[in-house]
Amino acid sequence: MEKSRLRNAIINTMERNAALVIKNANIVNVFTEEIIFGDVAIRDGLILGIGKYSGKEEIDAEGAFLCPGFIDSHVHIESSMAHPARFADCILAQGTTAIIADSHEIANVCGTDGIQYMLDQTEWLPLSVFFMIPSCVPCTGFETSGAKIVAKDMEQFLSHPRVIGLGEVMDYNAVVTGEGEMLDKLEMFKDRPIDGHIPSLFGDALKAYCAAGPDTDHECITFDEVKEKLFHGMRVFLRYGSACRGVEDIMSLIAKHNIPTRRLQLCTDDKHMEHINSEGHINYIVRRAVANGIPAIKAIQMATINAAEHYGLKRYGGIAPGYRADLVLFDNLTDFNAKLVLTNGIVFKPAEERKLKPDPKIYNSVHIAPRKPDCLKQKVEGPTPIIELMPKELYTFLRHEEVPTENGFFKPNSQLLKLAVFERHHASGRIGLGILRGLEINNGAIASTVGHDSHNLVVAGDNDSDMLCAIDALEECGGGYAVVSGGKVLARLPLPIAGLMSDAPLNKILEGQRKLLSALASIGSWGESDPFITLSFLALPVIPEVRLTDMGVFDVKQMKIISDS
Amino acid sequence: MEKSRLRNAIINTMERNAALVIKNANIVNVFTEEIIFGDVAIRDGLILGIGKYSGKEEIDAEGAFLCPGFIDSHVHIESSMAHPARFADCILAQGTTAIIADSHEIANVCGTDGIQYMLDQTEWLPLSVFFMIPSCVPCTGFETSGAKIVAKDMEQFLSHPRVIGLGEVMDYNAVVTGEGEMLDKLEMFKDRPIDGHIPSLFGDALKAYCAAGPDTDHECITFDEVKEKLFHGMRVFLRYGSACRGVEDIMSLIAKHNIPTRRLQLCTDDKHMEHINSEGHINYIVRRAVANGIPAIKAIQMATINAAEHYGLKRYGGIAPGYRADLVLFDNLTDFNAKLVLTNGIVFKPAEERKLKPDPKIYNSVHIAPRKPDCLKQKVEGPTPIIELMPKELYTFLRHEEVPTENGFFKPNSQLLKLAVFERHHASGRIGLGILRGLEINNGAIASTVGHDSHNLVVAGDNDSDMLCAIDALEECGGGYAVVSGGKVLARLPLPIAGLMSDAPLNKILEGQRKLLSALASIGSWGESDPFITLSFLALPVIPEVRLTDMGVFDVKQMKIISDS
Repeated sequence: MEKSRLRNAIINTMERNAALVIKNANIVNVFTEEIIFGDVAIRDGLILGIGKYSGKEEIDAEGAFLCPGFIDSHVHIESSMAHPARFADCILAQGTTAIIADSHEIANVCGTDGIQYMLDQTEWLPLSVFFMIPSCVPCTGFETSGAKIVAKDMEQFLSHPRVIGLGEVMDYNAVVTGEGEMLDKLEMFKDRPIDGHIPSLFGDALKAYCAAGPDTDHECITFDEVKEKLFHGMRVFLRYGSACRGVEDIMSLIAKHNIPTRRLQLCTDDKHMEHINSEGHINYIVRRAVANGIPAIKAIQMATINAAEHYGLKRYGGIAPGYRADLVLFDNLTDFNAKLVLTNGIVFKPAEERKLKPDPKIYNSVHIAPRKPDCLKQKVEGPTPIIELMPKELYTFLRHEEVPTENGFFKPNSQLLKLAVFERHHASGRIGLGILRGLEINNGAIASTVGHDSHNLVVAGDNDSDMLCAIDALEECGGGYAVVSGGKVLARLPLPIAGLMSDAPLNKILEGQRKLLSALASIGSWGESDPFITLSFLALPVIPEVRLTDMGVFDVKQMKIISDS
Repeated sequence: MEKSRLRNAIINTMERNAALVIKNANIVNVFTEEIIFGDVAIRDGLILGIGKYSGKEEIDAEGAFLCPGFIDSHVHIESSMAHPARFADCILAQGTTAIIADSHEIANVCGTDGIQYMLDQTEWLPLSVFFMIPSCVPCTGFETSGAKIVAKDMEQFLSHPRVIGLGEVMDYNAVVTGEGEMLDKLEMFKDRPIDGHIPSLFGDALKAYCAAGPDTDHECITFDEVKEKLFHGMRVFLRYGSACRGVEDIMSLIAKHNIPTRRLQLCTDDKHMEHINSEGHINYIVRRAVANGIPAIKAIQMATINAAEHYGLKRYGGIAPGYRADLVLFDNLTDFNAKLVLTNGIVFKPAEERKLKPDPKIYNSVHIAPRKPDCLKQKVEGPTPIIELMPKELYTFLRHEEVPTENGFFKPNSQLLKLAVFERHHASGRIGLGILRGLEINNGAIASTVGHDSHNLVVAGDNDSDMLCAIDALEECGGGYAVVSGGKVLARLPLPIAGLMSDAPLNKILEGQRKLLSALASIGSWGESDPFITLSFLALPVIPEVRLTDMGVFDVKQMKIISDS
């Protein structure tokens, strides 16, 4: 805030010169944990105060509940599949007015160009977008990413006003063994927030990881894990994205055991546009927290002041004089349906549609070597590693079983699918092959160039020809999602921005998503989960117990490739 | 922490290589608000973890309570009267291991040289000393200080690793009127913590002050004031120093009304060495908070994690892996008598005595113009302004009354004293005269070169000759405190460092203090309060309702001199 703006803020507050007043609201005060009936005065994007006010423009809240705008403590915009400007419109409509973004996905495809692209594309949005610099590109050495980022590459971003800290440190093995390149990054960010990422890490390894500097975790899958991480000084983010839907049990245990909530925050991590649109964003997590017994004021604090305090966002996360006028009005504190959203003091309306200009550094990112028809054939003998999905979570179990074969090669069926990861950045021709249980596909295949975190092409199916057809379809359109059956592309959603995001308007993406879902319904049954999200995490070698990368089946606990192709 | 130290921290944590273990402690976890029985392992100044440990050296806590070292959120080291190294020894013994210091006092005498002196003298202490850069030197234009500090002067300190933010913004009038020089300072520190100082500011002025950026206050004298400041987003510090002893009522109301405590912190602000030594420091405030009904864990949080979080002190304020091993062991959670203190992993012992080298820039700071014998004569007629002390607080009431006279001049008595402020930096000869009710002096005078915040010489007495004698005594020794009766100096404590601090060892200062107290007892009765502290605040023109500066009697609410000399 430059000097004249500061002077105006002071004088307008002193003299009650409101430009806009939200009248007759039940105002949620996250500092004192009270709800007070009154007005909130606003001018020049700032809150002048809570009290009795009149202003040039007035909005009668009619007793609705006015909260500070919600903050997503950890999100990959790329996972929404939308360009940041369209993602912003989508989450602003739900009452999320600030996010801590980690450009980890695009960085794995495009390197620092990808990070700069996300900074540039979020510069003028009504959404406040802060960034953590991705720490693990690639996230391990057991996969092939599009780019590698070392500590020296990060220096250029350190002084950017919206760069806050170091993004989720996924390679916990590098951390707890004191690997030099990792230490450089941790040292560079030692006085800033550092996000952690440690599913199922306990005991001395957890303590060593904490000692290294990361101070948050969003990967807890049990209540005991939440408790242990809080105990050792971490902040824990309750995550509720498109996958990872088991957090409700944790919420109800937090409520039941009256766990102090000040070190809890909320995040979506990875959530598709159509899920945001249909059920909500951070407001959905708050709704579920309240439904599971957490007091509304505590849940709102997790979504506001807890995040603002942790990330050092002065003037965010509360309703008070001098705070940014990011506000959201809810009819009640159970549903959290946003009926009015203000950002920077302005009533939010989705932007008029505009055409985005393709950036050659970021578009055209899919480079796959030519495929031979038998490239998916997988010789097996005796007990073979199987990747088994844990329902509702990203966690997987590693099984070893005899599998059906034909001429010594694995013969997939609708319950036991063939899974493949194609290196898609450097056209190296590298292909990882595996066997998957937990998704059901009948006579078809699904494929995605979103494949955390190296974003190689991941494809699953019950027959080779549909799988190959799906790969062709994605190569042709610069990446995206495809559903194939009987040699025919039933649906395809192109994601030309780094093979991760669409440059189409929101309704086009949603339409594309609907077509995908309808095509999916014709080849399998999916319950609550989105098989594309499941697919996109099957190549992520930092979530236990087992993954498939372009280098082969990877045992996450042993940290080694156990079957290469 | 440089890279090799970080690697060692990780590996030692992973491999449980403890150098020192505190065994069998009841460990206070400020993150989870639990008390857990166990061991704490330490090495290289860092905590490796809580658990079951053995180490090269072991200390059996025998079930005593292990807390993170306490943090004083706002303190003027100068007000202890001791050199920072001796002050450190004194508060470390009480379990305070980190402080947020504001060198406001010495800066008012010596300018930026004084700030640099304090940074230099605290560089190698076992106490962690962080600094706020004084914002108001002088604190108003209605007094004469030794130096003036503008925003440009502050630039040199911005990159110092122990400089955190902007010190208490006392000139609230400059703030709420948007005065340019003040805005420069607020703008310079807009992304950092800014401490406030706003006794009895409410309503729109309070809101305008908040909008300007200060985010804490430590001047509340009523529970309603605490509530209002919290409501508008400020953090409130419960202060318990040598003066300002009315905070206990506030504590009991906080407990009674179950006010959320996460935005409360503790500070001493101004506390003399002998009070620290006799009753304690932050541990004393925690003790009183608990005695007044605040749960021990909440009081401990106020003294630890709440402060660390607010001031962005990573790895301070909690017991967890990678945290600084600043720890204190208490026999119980009611008395909070420190039985063992660790700082940076080392058991604290007071330093061996060493001679301090006088710094010519900082010593020899008392420069008063020659006095005529009648310089204290004060002509009065009709109702005259009287400065009346509020019991237990620094607050004063402005009265207008007829006063006793002799030949048209005010004639003091033991209940209605003469008060004078002598400009002592530039030998200008400027003297402010006033009348004081609330201290009792019989046949004597007391004088001090500690006179917040310009630190002119303040003297009070019931006769002119003792007052003049006291001034002579302080001029001679380079400043300090003096008690005079019947033309004789009964006791004198020299404070040659800027006229504010002693360079003598702790026991010498305490002995000097005892002599002062005993001399004081012979000329008046003082109840619980220390009249030198009362005296030292009588010239501070930012605490309502009325003060005396070298320019005359100052009405704080009207912001004007109402009677010059």
